[in-house]
Amino acid sequence: MDFIKLPEEIEKRSMEIISPHLDGLNLNEEETKVYSRIIHAAGDVEYAPIIKIHSAAISAAKSAISAGKNIFVDVEMVRTGINKRALKKFGGEVFCKVADEDTKNLAAAEKITRSMAAMRIFDRELDGSIVAVGNAPTALFEVLRLAREKNIRPAVIVGVPVGFVGAADSKAELANQNEIPFITVEGTKGGSPIAVAAINAILYMLDKSRGK
Amino acid sequence: MDFIKLPEEIEKRSMEIISPHLDGLNLNEEETKVYSRIIHAAGDVEYAPIIKIHSAAISAAKSAISAGKNIFVDVEMVRTGINKRALKKFGGEVFCKVADEDTKNLAAAEKITRSMAAMRIFDRELDGSIVAVGNAPTALFEVLRLAREKNIRPAVIVGVPVGFVGAADSKAELANQNEIPFITVEGTKGGSPIAVAAINAILYMLDKSRGK
Repeated sequence: MDFIKLPEEIEKRSMEIISPHLDGLNLNEEETKVYSRIIHAAGDVEYAPIIKIHSAAISAAKSAISAGKNIFVDVEMVRTGINKRALKKFGGEVFCKVADEDTKNLAAAEKITRSMAAMRIFDRELDGSIVAVGNAPTALFEVLRLAREKNIRPAVIVGVPVGFVGAADSKAELANQNEIPFITVEGTKGGSPIAVAAINAILYMLDKSRGK
Repeated sequence: MDFIKLPEEIEKRSMEIISPHLDGLNLNEEETKVYSRIIHAAGDVEYAPIIKIHSAAISAAKSAISAGKNIFVDVEMVRTGINKRALKKFGGEVFCKVADEDTKNLAAAEKITRSMAAMRIFDRELDGSIVAVGNAPTALFEVLRLAREKNIRPAVIVGVPVGFVGAADSKAELANQNEIPFITVEGTKGGSPIAVAAINAILYMLDKSRGK
């Protein structure tokens, strides 16, 4: 059968196909990498005009990773997808509390989602760290509340929750603040692979070997 | 802050928003559940016209799950997302070999992707089982080759690899055969959450408690 089977060739060809869809967006080299990896992960060039990257987001993420900061995520699929070997080279780890017993208890007591409860439990751990929300708008709303009410300041928020209930609003709130650098996507689209794509694109800027 | 925080309400509201986008597709109740969950997972109503479900696919998947058959997947994010507690009630497990040592060795020796090598190693284990490919076109091409050349017959293939290199072709090949029931999506879109959405929608038809 005649199809490309070498991983490096698949990625190279994919990036060539995506490239023309980024024309006119005035992206620098690093932004191009994040955009390309997101579009590659979604198989959807219509992400190009809806991705929003705060001007300080990529440098803030690189600094945080290089300093060994951790990544706090809303769901296990995001933890699974992030290249943890690449991250570990700098000392950081990925944490997800959505399935923890104390998270379940808090969620039941407060009648909120588990991913929201998990962010509330992380609390001050989020200070200076990277937050990645790939699924739950409620988790992103909670991180923004912690910032507003408790002055908790992640180094960067990758906020790309997905869906028709709260996702667009939570991402608009993220994009409308200027205190915390962010990577997001307008509207209802998003998801775990989008969060993973953004994080791994930045990890691979720092670790060309990709954790190998 | 005023947003919906109860998981059941979020899902109910989401399904109400999706429902009108399924008008005119002539879906039965079970197909509606699979479509809705996929669109919910992608936050993208443009999936509605591109989802393709073989007429025997959902019943075949339900029978296989009920009989305790396993699910073989291409990448870890698909394994992570599938509700394994719900599956375990019927006796089945989820297997992914993409990170195994023998998979790495075969991929390097044959100059193919790891996810393709993993399917080749599963070989006859795929007979009668459920296969879910959420990421790698090469894995789906390999499953279809095993069917054609070795008469290996999964009960159903959920084939929704994503991207610009091979994804559309591999899914067209899946949809153009009639030997193995399938769930797929036309074109470049797809991904791990789409595979997970289809599998979990079917699991929840069988286990209303969702593995709780």
